[in-house]
Amino acid sequence: MRTVKLLIAFDGTGYCGWQRQKNGFSIQEEIERSLSVICNEQIILHGAGRTDAGVHAQGMTAHFKTYSKVDGTALQKGLNSLLPGAIRILEVSDQPADFHARFSALAKTYRYTIFTSQVMPPNWRLYTYHLPFKLDRSIMEQCLGELLGTHDFSSFETTGSRDKNNNHGRGGMRTIYRARLVEPEEHIVLLQFTGDGFLRHMVRNITGTVLEVGRGKRTVKEFVQILRCKDRNKAGATAPSCGLSLVKVHYQKDW
Amino acid sequence: MRTVKLLIAFDGTGYCGWQRQKNGFSIQEEIERSLSVICNEQIILHGAGRTDAGVHAQGMTAHFKTYSKVDGTALQKGLNSLLPGAIRILEVSDQPADFHARFSALAKTYRYTIFTSQVMPPNWRLYTYHLPFKLDRSIMEQCLGELLGTHDFSSFETTGSRDKNNNHGRGGMRTIYRARLVEPEEHIVLLQFTGDGFLRHMVRNITGTVLEVGRGKRTVKEFVQILRCKDRNKAGATAPSCGLSLVKVHYQKDW
Repeated sequence: MRTVKLLIAFDGTGYCGWQRQKNGFSIQEEIERSLSVICNEQIILHGAGRTDAGVHAQGMTAHFKTYSKVDGTALQKGLNSLLPGAIRILEVSDQPADFHARFSALAKTYRYTIFTSQVMPPNWRLYTYHLPFKLDRSIMEQCLGELLGTHDFSSFETTGSRDKNNNHGRGGMRTIYRARLVEPEEHIVLLQFTGDGFLRHMVRNITGTVLEVGRGKRTVKEFVQILRCKDRNKAGATAPSCGLSLVKVHYQKDW
Repeated sequence: MRTVKLLIAFDGTGYCGWQRQKNGFSIQEEIERSLSVICNEQIILHGAGRTDAGVHAQGMTAHFKTYSKVDGTALQKGLNSLLPGAIRILEVSDQPADFHARFSALAKTYRYTIFTSQVMPPNWRLYTYHLPFKLDRSIMEQCLGELLGTHDFSSFETTGSRDKNNNHGRGGMRTIYRARLVEPEEHIVLLQFTGDGFLRHMVRNITGTVLEVGRGKRTVKEFVQILRCKDRNKAGATAPSCGLSLVKVHYQKDW
């Protein structure tokens, strides 16, 4: 039996998220359906994690087990011909039997994209959060610096939502390895986070709060207090899902 | 009575094109409806030209006459709050009474975007033509060079479609001032055309044929023969609308 890993990009607009759900179309379901056709057996796909409705991915990963002998190149071509253009398989690779898309992952990188000018270009609107305000880069970077290292991020977790299967007994403890702000061009701000794991809505809740600091609605000191108080009710608004993209899932090989 | 010019960007996906039509939603209709609400009178919008279903714009222009006294800034804000995100008003300006979005235009610039790698990124799929083949830049540039100047472009016009109102008695004669190929990053090819006017489907028909030359399916010599023979049946396939964008309409002021 083979263990096969997929590297996946998707446009999450209109999907209920990665995970199969009763109400709505999921990315997982779309790929499982096409995989089952190509492999000629029922395929269960294990993703590196969940993504919320409307969140995008440039580098989601997943694995599945199969008896099929269809090689990687043919699998990729077959999937990309069956799947809608919103979901693309970037790579297919055979892995050792103990590889698991979620449990073998060492870290993930998410990127949040904000457009700060007055009028949002129509072709960016599904992939970018429109926040037409001047943002203070320097104080936002101070906030990002405070996130580095291991903390209890419960203040930035959506309440009552903890996924016990994904928890590893860590509670709200997570480690952020890198958090940076990039301005690739005028009026575009990217917030990029690499960590060993993220609580539900954590990137969007951190982003929403950092943006409030950037607009001058809160201070860095308040941001630090929010992080330390472990109380979701103190944090800022959840930034909208369309601005978020899962950029990369890191494994031993490239870490 | 005022004459007001709009500079407009739109995502043409899902629209039947610029012009009002019985079947389908048009950009013109969407803007006219919102304008009529804001100006509190029936507004007729005159565009700089038509665009096909699915074609995008970064710099479409249009004008209208109104008795309304709502100033440009308020008009822009009002329109952008009423219109769907697929249509954005970039600028509003009062013009002399004889300004006409179409008849005052000296030239237009269109850009066609092609993605040449194997797997199309999901968030580009609505704005880019996927042609996963190696293209020979040098011979495509030779074709573009042949287009410069004044020619009868009937070979690149969709048959039976000539818009007599837009013809000015010129038949198929049009002047191309500039035609160039740009590769802003790997696997992205832009074909950009500036001309005094374009026949129906002309940019997409030229692009389709130039791409056939770039892939080695036709020679530059054949391309020149097609241009000279004035017979649409000789040209290549019409490139899909999603790759095309109206970049700019040029007026006296900036020409």
